[in-house]
Amino acid sequence: MRSGVALLAGLSMMSGFALAATPHAATMQEILAATRASDWRALDDDNTLLMDLPGGRVVIELAPQFAPAHVANIKTLVRAHYFDGLAITRVQDNFVTQWGDPHAGEADARSLGDASPTLPPEFTRRSSGLAFTALPDRDAYAAQTGFVDSLPAARDSRLGEAWLTHCYGMVGAGRDNDPQSGSGKELYVVIGQAPRQLDRNIALVGRVVQGMELLASLPRGSAAMGFYTDAESKPPITRIRIAADLPDREREHLEVLRTDTPSFAALVASRRNRRDAWYVAPAGHIDVCNVPLPVRPVARTGH
Amino acid sequence: MRSGVALLAGLSMMSGFALAATPHAATMQEILAATRASDWRALDDDNTLLMDLPGGRVVIELAPQFAPAHVANIKTLVRAHYFDGLAITRVQDNFVTQWGDPHAGEADARSLGDASPTLPPEFTRRSSGLAFTALPDRDAYAAQTGFVDSLPAARDSRLGEAWLTHCYGMVGAGRDNDPQSGSGKELYVVIGQAPRQLDRNIALVGRVVQGMELLASLPRGSAAMGFYTDAESKPPITRIRIAADLPDREREHLEVLRTDTPSFAALVASRRNRRDAWYVAPAGHIDVCNVPLPVRPVARTGH
Repeated sequence: MRSGVALLAGLSMMSGFALAATPHAATMQEILAATRASDWRALDDDNTLLMDLPGGRVVIELAPQFAPAHVANIKTLVRAHYFDGLAITRVQDNFVTQWGDPHAGEADARSLGDASPTLPPEFTRRSSGLAFTALPDRDAYAAQTGFVDSLPAARDSRLGEAWLTHCYGMVGAGRDNDPQSGSGKELYVVIGQAPRQLDRNIALVGRVVQGMELLASLPRGSAAMGFYTDAESKPPITRIRIAADLPDREREHLEVLRTDTPSFAALVASRRNRRDAWYVAPAGHIDVCNVPLPVRPVARTGH
Repeated sequence: MRSGVALLAGLSMMSGFALAATPHAATMQEILAATRASDWRALDDDNTLLMDLPGGRVVIELAPQFAPAHVANIKTLVRAHYFDGLAITRVQDNFVTQWGDPHAGEADARSLGDASPTLPPEFTRRSSGLAFTALPDRDAYAAQTGFVDSLPAARDSRLGEAWLTHCYGMVGAGRDNDPQSGSGKELYVVIGQAPRQLDRNIALVGRVVQGMELLASLPRGSAAMGFYTDAESKPPITRIRIAADLPDREREHLEVLRTDTPSFAALVASRRNRRDAWYVAPAGHIDVCNVPLPVRPVARTGH
């Protein structure tokens, strides 16, 4: 397995503690091991969705700072148990996994209750008043990329706008051709190469911080664009809850590495130019969608 | 399903004929419908691997123009039926699926036969003498990106070098820390965000042109870096054959859109600035790893 293990030295990990078990990634491991409790931020239970599937739980942190109307509407839907018993309706290879009401738009579609069927397009927001940790690395799609509250984002000072970027694991709200037709009743998550062409065209509402593999390893749908056919069994959604609405023992106690810290800057530097023994030609660059965003169980004391 | 279908208009498809069934992707559909037989190239059976898994077949076109020694060694291994009965040993979410001998490096490892256990590092090649169709779009990692024989690639005229890029679906040969330790006995395919930091550090040997979903939708391994544990059932490889070694009826008759044609240039332009009714802000840019590389069954007449 030697060459296999060696190839691992090339990995960009999604999880801090997975790294702790990675003998070949000492540099990043050391940086994470040296972090202090203050370098980490616990998830906001009021804005964390716990999506329970038969195979396990997906944890999604919402981004009200970018899509307040969508986040509020999604929380209204979740509190009305809208998603409970619905299903994953589409899995398109190298694009997205999407879930919602298989009967949406039909006579027996589930009611949205008090939620709004349409929302203002929250595709971008004003960049002013946003704590943006910029990457020095050039980006091919945006004037500048970086991070806001541990979420990958982009900014254009000329436009005075900022937006979340469609990186792997980012969650968005499907919409029709009408820019205001999104409601959050149908959500998708990026499972392949970052479809950056979607940036500024649709509302991203958060990101998966744990359980991503549950949404990425599903069978691809056989109909056009990855939709499951009626004959195919659509993976069911047991329930979606807001963490704050559950008793403490049923929540997930996770924290993410703050992206406005020297520890994160050191992590990015270590990934921009990999010094692992395996590398012969460090890239000297890193794409915003290739920066690992470490997640770990809440540490009651410093890591 | 309306908003779901609408979201589809945002897709970057991997397959030409899937697109033909995509009512919302008219622009690209029209371009592909207007192609002539001469815009397409049939796969080279002598350099096409047919990887049979219990769930279906994966078709991989090898790239001898970039990694001749690796391709020759892989063909030696395949002709000795080295991979038959071996397994997929690792699936790491958002990184790679890897296969080879679960007992590699152990006493009962399968013999490499006449294949070489080490090879010269074919991480880059001289750019001279290579028909390179350049993209005008800037790339964040390389001086220039583009396509060579329908494969995503990069070039640096200052270095006088060219290399294949680690885009979704690209296949490479695992290696140990020694740059010459790769042999092709252990292969990996990119299943997530393009790990471009691997470019120029390891030999890419080809790309999956059909069946990618079979390798991307596998359960992720639970051990560090996605390796399957001994307790987990490793997805078996029924056999891998070179298309030219099989009777015609057992081969796959596929062709890929030539990347050195006006049709491909038109396709790229249509993806760089999406004019679908769904889009409100065309990107004005495209990343080499976001360019669809159409594949279709061999058309005996023009499409």
